[in-house]
Amino acid sequence: MNFFSSDFKLGILGGGQLGKMLLYETRKWDIQTKVMDPSPEAPCKIACNEFVLGDLLDFEKVYNFGKDVDLLTIEIENVNVEALEKLEEEGVKVYPQTKALRIIQNKATQKLFYTDHGIPTAPFVRFAYTSEIKDSIANGGLALPFVWKSAQFGYDGQGVKVVRAVEDLEGLPNVECIAEEMIAFKNELAVIVARSSSGELVNYPVVEMEFHPEANQVEYVICPARIDENVAQKAIDVALIVSENIGHVGLLAVELFQTQDDKILVNEVAPRPHNSGHYSIEASYTNQFEQHIRAILGLPLGKTDSKVAGIMVNLVGAEGHTGDVIYENMESILDMQGVTPHIYGKKQTRPFRKMGHVTIVDEDMARAREVAQQVKETIQVVSK
Amino acid sequence: MNFFSSDFKLGILGGGQLGKMLLYETRKWDIQTKVMDPSPEAPCKIACNEFVLGDLLDFEKVYNFGKDVDLLTIEIENVNVEALEKLEEEGVKVYPQTKALRIIQNKATQKLFYTDHGIPTAPFVRFAYTSEIKDSIANGGLALPFVWKSAQFGYDGQGVKVVRAVEDLEGLPNVECIAEEMIAFKNELAVIVARSSSGELVNYPVVEMEFHPEANQVEYVICPARIDENVAQKAIDVALIVSENIGHVGLLAVELFQTQDDKILVNEVAPRPHNSGHYSIEASYTNQFEQHIRAILGLPLGKTDSKVAGIMVNLVGAEGHTGDVIYENMESILDMQGVTPHIYGKKQTRPFRKMGHVTIVDEDMARAREVAQQVKETIQVVSK
Repeated sequence: MNFFSSDFKLGILGGGQLGKMLLYETRKWDIQTKVMDPSPEAPCKIACNEFVLGDLLDFEKVYNFGKDVDLLTIEIENVNVEALEKLEEEGVKVYPQTKALRIIQNKATQKLFYTDHGIPTAPFVRFAYTSEIKDSIANGGLALPFVWKSAQFGYDGQGVKVVRAVEDLEGLPNVECIAEEMIAFKNELAVIVARSSSGELVNYPVVEMEFHPEANQVEYVICPARIDENVAQKAIDVALIVSENIGHVGLLAVELFQTQDDKILVNEVAPRPHNSGHYSIEASYTNQFEQHIRAILGLPLGKTDSKVAGIMVNLVGAEGHTGDVIYENMESILDMQGVTPHIYGKKQTRPFRKMGHVTIVDEDMARAREVAQQVKETIQVVSK
Repeated sequence: MNFFSSDFKLGILGGGQLGKMLLYETRKWDIQTKVMDPSPEAPCKIACNEFVLGDLLDFEKVYNFGKDVDLLTIEIENVNVEALEKLEEEGVKVYPQTKALRIIQNKATQKLFYTDHGIPTAPFVRFAYTSEIKDSIANGGLALPFVWKSAQFGYDGQGVKVVRAVEDLEGLPNVECIAEEMIAFKNELAVIVARSSSGELVNYPVVEMEFHPEANQVEYVICPARIDENVAQKAIDVALIVSENIGHVGLLAVELFQTQDDKILVNEVAPRPHNSGHYSIEASYTNQFEQHIRAILGLPLGKTDSKVAGIMVNLVGAEGHTGDVIYENMESILDMQGVTPHIYGKKQTRPFRKMGHVTIVDEDMARAREVAQQVKETIQVVSK
């Protein structure tokens, strides 16, 4: 199969920042692309060969889109899987496959998959509706605190809430959900695994994540994680087991907890490029977006080692600011060593919205960490 | 000035591979762009915000294009400078400035500039027409062999020819030209200098270039050059003197000869991103395209150090092949460690046409050089 400067056409469902960064790689290799997104202001609108406006959950839209491409991938899980199943039946290649999407798309299904396969994960209870949780607490069936997670459509910190008291349930949507035991973890870790359509399997180094306490969004992603080598190996082993069991094609980002007694638990996974892998654009021999393209096209997978230490800082909208975006003090961070900002191109900011990220690379991890702190304290995503 | 996700619009004259790689950076920072190129199949046609078909040497086209942007830059020198001068007079920022373009665009003027400023360069004679050269040889005014260079419009190995006998002049265009003494150099080197509109000046490490003997195109660019430290420092010193004298804003790629007795001579310069800096995408802390954007926007310049050793191999069309392009053995080179192909997106190949490049990076230079050789021996740019 010839992909480069050819008639081959790759379809991408979703036109956000992940799609935008995938398009750097398709441009680099002159692979034709067609992208669908519901927003006329999607970051992917330019740099693809063809852009289609469409609801990713609409059966007809997704099906018709898929009929016009040679291979279909996603940059967001919330897509119409029934349409993808029909496309698969009709011979269209869909990576990740719908069987992987079915496991992952619904967080309750995903958790059941782990327990069914003996994969370590935090204890949880599934509820058909959030409203059932109060009864369960009253009956003594569920102990506070716990983490409430919507089974479907969680993204960007939405769909997840720490519940410390019954009142914290107020205002949550009355949907299928899980209540998960709060893990008093030492570290949140992640491992990105790539599996190609020819079965080749590679993993990136373990990264360490720090979350914003309120917004439940990653503040720093640090590669390599500053943890014991044995723990890192355990994290990689678990990630590879998850990957083999799911049998995906493309990337799988595996988020993990390192418990106080150094056990590794799977938190959740995403079958696509992931926020925890953005550091790879500047730090790795093969960045995660190129790796995803290699994997789904059945090309040999690239070297996952890092050239230098990498730290990623998310650029999220400041609290109290909604409207046309301005990036304050960009010049100051560009004056720091080894700093690369990525601006996704969303015109409107709002509190905690992911507007971009900044990567800091250095031969020396301690120095990178210092600069990352300076970046975080300097740049501000505000409205005009 | 606010450039990021704003109304600011950057104009780029030329839509080839250099423009295409500049657009990765404008996309990364969400800077609006408008590109003009004469070809409807220009590699820049997608990924800019606006594409205009137009002859870069047409006064009206260039002038009207410039009136619609906030800042104008180039990815090729062969543009209508009169139009740029009028735009400058009317307050449009043009980087590189027309005074720099005027010096560089004509190779005879460029050479005279070096001698006027005491900058070491190979001896040369200027001719108004190629036809005058025969007389000069007959009179004993010019000795064989020499290098014939068209004063204007040389690109991609065209416009340059080694003349060893009078017959070699047959078929050359009868244009303004220079005859330059052939330098028995030890090495061809290059140094990229960036100068920002605020006057900040930085240089990349010295790179070493190997040319294809017939096509006069670079085969390998090696960073850092495997030369003595004193020679490298001398090369950097000369490049900085050239840069300061020209007073450009943006990048200046300075090509140099290292003579047998380790003198440094300036060969020629280009006021834009350059083939000799492509390695920087994978190897440097700040790649040359981002650096050019930083320089012309007056942003702080980025760190020019390398993370790892880098070697670049040009992908040029194989001899005997003209037509729809195919990249043979791409999978084999993707299976090698630290290898990143860049495919420019030209649909038609022809002998020696620059179709892409491949970067090889490794912590170890010797290993990178071995892999580069394998890449060169493996991939073939042929027609269907």
